[in-house]
Amino acid sequence: MKNLKFIISYDGTAYSGFQTQPGGNTIQDKLEDTIFKLTGESVKVISSGRTDAGVHARRQVINFITNSVIPVERWCLALNTRLPKDIVALSAEEAPLTFHSRKSAKRKTYCYAVRVARFPNVFQRKFEFHHYTPLHIEAMREALECLIGEHDFTSFCTVRTDKEIRVRTIYEARIEVEPDAMSDDTKAGSLRVMITGSGFLYNMVRIIVGTLFQIGEGKRDSSDMRRILEACDRSQAGPTAEANGLTLWNVEY
Amino acid sequence: MKNLKFIISYDGTAYSGFQTQPGGNTIQDKLEDTIFKLTGESVKVISSGRTDAGVHARRQVINFITNSVIPVERWCLALNTRLPKDIVALSAEEAPLTFHSRKSAKRKTYCYAVRVARFPNVFQRKFEFHHYTPLHIEAMREALECLIGEHDFTSFCTVRTDKEIRVRTIYEARIEVEPDAMSDDTKAGSLRVMITGSGFLYNMVRIIVGTLFQIGEGKRDSSDMRRILEACDRSQAGPTAEANGLTLWNVEY
Repeated sequence: MKNLKFIISYDGTAYSGFQTQPGGNTIQDKLEDTIFKLTGESVKVISSGRTDAGVHARRQVINFITNSVIPVERWCLALNTRLPKDIVALSAEEAPLTFHSRKSAKRKTYCYAVRVARFPNVFQRKFEFHHYTPLHIEAMREALECLIGEHDFTSFCTVRTDKEIRVRTIYEARIEVEPDAMSDDTKAGSLRVMITGSGFLYNMVRIIVGTLFQIGEGKRDSSDMRRILEACDRSQAGPTAEANGLTLWNVEY
Repeated sequence: MKNLKFIISYDGTAYSGFQTQPGGNTIQDKLEDTIFKLTGESVKVISSGRTDAGVHARRQVINFITNSVIPVERWCLALNTRLPKDIVALSAEEAPLTFHSRKSAKRKTYCYAVRVARFPNVFQRKFEFHHYTPLHIEAMREALECLIGEHDFTSFCTVRTDKEIRVRTIYEARIEVEPDAMSDDTKAGSLRVMITGSGFLYNMVRIIVGTLFQIGEGKRDSSDMRRILEACDRSQAGPTAEANGLTLWNVEY
């Protein structure tokens, strides 16, 4: 009996999220079906956390228990030749039996990518949100600062249950800006909102980004972010930003 | 009567190339259909050159003659709201009636993108060729040098007609290398073969790249490139590299 740990990447565009669903069109279903075809075993794939429909992963971590005799160094190629082309296993290793992708995770980083330009970049269109009008980046950066540290993030959480503990720690939150060489529009560019935390509530990054957009558009002041955080009230924050811009960037153990 | 010149971008994955075909699934057909819906006019869209099935364009140039009264600054948005999402008009301007996208073009640049790694990058998989094994970049760079200048490129041309003039000038040919931050494989990276010339024969860039791969894999010596060029014989060169890695990068007038 072995506990295998993988780093996987996926383009989430075509899927109903990570977690298994009756319809079956999820990353977990594709992985479990492929492992079944490969080994005849019905395993349960554990991930560092579910990602929503349309959300991507650059380096998601998964693990599962197997009795298969396939050597660990053969697993990635064996999976990749059978998986759909929008899911790729990047590396595999044997982990202690106590390793659990979700429970063992220490830090997770999400990236929300935004293209700011009149028109979308056709090559990145599935992985970045297209924002037509300019954004005030400095105001967005100021707003992000108050999120660093341990807080109750209820204002940035789509409520699923009242009993949930909504305290999380944000270690780092920053905005990277790159000009866009493709466009004649000198104001065109790409933003990456990078947020690293102990864990994230349901829709947390997308609601933070939806609120950041309102600040970047001048509809709210950067100081509103602190007020919204302290209110512990979802209705105070901005809308949930679209899924396609979000990528689970990295998971640390 | 106006001659409108556009810079357009497209993800060529889903199309049978630029040039119109009876089946209709081409970039030209999509553009002409969209212009018809917008203006009621049946125009003929001229491009700087056809691109093959599966080949992309970052900055393709097109023009057409129209009697439409739509102001030039409204055209891009009008087209983009009606075009499929994998074709985007980036800019529009009125050109002299004598302007012809193909005949007026002075220099064209193509980019052939290659991912060198054990596994593909899921986010770039449609726009780069996946090469499983390491490539000897310096040998490939040496081989490219002899192509600079005016030459008969018959060896790098899929023959369509014997009467064709196969002399072209290559102004620049270089390989850009970027390490891949996503992978744990330290040898993983992306290559871009960038070639600028007066014009290109049918499949010319893809045959040059197919030959470069053989040199990079050590199957041929870098000095073979000159011998192949001088032979003026298609059978001496390597295979035609796959379409998905090729992008028409820029056109200069």
